[in-house]
Amino acid sequence: MYDFKAEYQRLQTRFERFMQEYLEELKTTPAVLGESMAYSLQNGGKRIRPVLMLATAEAFGVEESRVLPFALALEMIHTYSLVHDDLPAMDNDDFRRGKPSNHKVFGEGNAVLAGDALLNTAFGLCLKECFKGQDEVLASSILCECAGIDGMIAGQSADLLFEKNLENAKEKDLLYIQENKTGKLILAAVAVPSVLSGNEYYYQLREYAVTLGRLFQITDDILDVTGDFTALGKTIGKDEREDKLTSIRFYSLDGARVQADVCADRCNAVLDGVKKDLSFLRDFVAMVRNRSK
Amino acid sequence: MYDFKAEYQRLQTRFERFMQEYLEELKTTPAVLGESMAYSLQNGGKRIRPVLMLATAEAFGVEESRVLPFALALEMIHTYSLVHDDLPAMDNDDFRRGKPSNHKVFGEGNAVLAGDALLNTAFGLCLKECFKGQDEVLASSILCECAGIDGMIAGQSADLLFEKNLENAKEKDLLYIQENKTGKLILAAVAVPSVLSGNEYYYQLREYAVTLGRLFQITDDILDVTGDFTALGKTIGKDEREDKLTSIRFYSLDGARVQADVCADRCNAVLDGVKKDLSFLRDFVAMVRNRSK
Repeated sequence: MYDFKAEYQRLQTRFERFMQEYLEELKTTPAVLGESMAYSLQNGGKRIRPVLMLATAEAFGVEESRVLPFALALEMIHTYSLVHDDLPAMDNDDFRRGKPSNHKVFGEGNAVLAGDALLNTAFGLCLKECFKGQDEVLASSILCECAGIDGMIAGQSADLLFEKNLENAKEKDLLYIQENKTGKLILAAVAVPSVLSGNEYYYQLREYAVTLGRLFQITDDILDVTGDFTALGKTIGKDEREDKLTSIRFYSLDGARVQADVCADRCNAVLDGVKKDLSFLRDFVAMVRNRSK
Repeated sequence: MYDFKAEYQRLQTRFERFMQEYLEELKTTPAVLGESMAYSLQNGGKRIRPVLMLATAEAFGVEESRVLPFALALEMIHTYSLVHDDLPAMDNDDFRRGKPSNHKVFGEGNAVLAGDALLNTAFGLCLKECFKGQDEVLASSILCECAGIDGMIAGQSADLLFEKNLENAKEKDLLYIQENKTGKLILAAVAVPSVLSGNEYYYQLREYAVTLGRLFQITDDILDVTGDFTALGKTIGKDEREDKLTSIRFYSLDGARVQADVCADRCNAVLDGVKKDLSFLRDFVAMVRNRSK
């Protein structure tokens, strides 16, 4: 009998074990470099992206061993973006998932380097897979594109641009930030196994992931207003106070909830067009929609 | 008639043209992201690493078109390291090659992102080459390793660790920083064309590059003490004042000059073992040894 929570737990545990094995082999000189990387990788995230990648791989018949290195690379890229984003030069956040941010523990200089190191190491993992064949090169290229100047970094840059400059922001700017800053790494989680499975349903999976990414950012904005520090492990109401471009600002809280429902419905409608057992991908949407952290 | 300066100029111009063509195609949203990347890429560097890569490729019969993307990737990696290194959280330098540092023009947040974007884009360039075959995957992997936690970032981390903690530093720590922080990207400049040429002289070229990297850092330390701002375009005596681990501190100025000569001689001795016309690689050593900027 299929149980979403148990499935999620199983996939998360599989990922955590793979990451743990990797970190046990990770020896750096000086040691602080590897320690600061491990600190941020191990700080108790929900592993949304790796779990989504492993689940998509299973649904489309891609062996786990082929996606695990990409799942770790993706989590490293997500983690580096948080480490740099928390820096005083960026979002200036002292807490991440209830623990002091990387720069609060290791200092700003080490945090810059830890972020750089996580990004560089992510591509090292991908390149090792690229010896296997062209599908792996394509998967790596898509991950790289999703993370870069046509993906996450573009979204972060737009986010920074509109900070304290809200009077010039339009809805299309909000959508651009949602699609890129948050959406592109969610897309990568689905696109990598899609490529490795031969891309039969690439367009459906792409649409699913982009919409799920938007849903994820909208619920993040809702939680920034309605959540509490204990559950979220980060400062509450910070985006609002700092005049960031959020869904709440454009749609109001109730409007954002409607947008979230629209996104969730759209995700499920897209999956209707795919002839596979996608129960987990459907329940994943509900989890993101209803999350409280 | 072979003329080193004319050759250097020719290779540098070839690289600059390739980079310029690339930058003309580079469109980002928001525009400031691409502008900040281009600002630091175009700030008049000597293009030591790309020129060395192109020259090595020529000497070993590798077509220029195969190495140019790697040369640009390498220069992007070098540039991102400078952008992040100049941040207040790191070396806190307001000038780079006589122009305001990236963060002085674009702000710290944008500078963090510009650095991340340059690193990410460098691997995007490499991955595009990886579709061609396994040699390109190996060349990309070596570049990645040289840039990462067993290469440049390890050296930067060690550099940071010993800053203001000089009493615990030993000569081996200085050598480690020289080999990794500076040496590994010089190594990459030579290793990439070596791999693409079939690696007949890999060990000699490796030894040449590692020693050249050390020479480069020693002359950098000498210039930090003896150079002037107009020629160097950066603050003079800064490393000394800030208690960084430099060759001068270990060997004194005269001792560092002796070490530099030893490195230069070693570079040339290694090249004696390679049956190719390596005039340019020899003259390159002399140029680094005698540089005034």
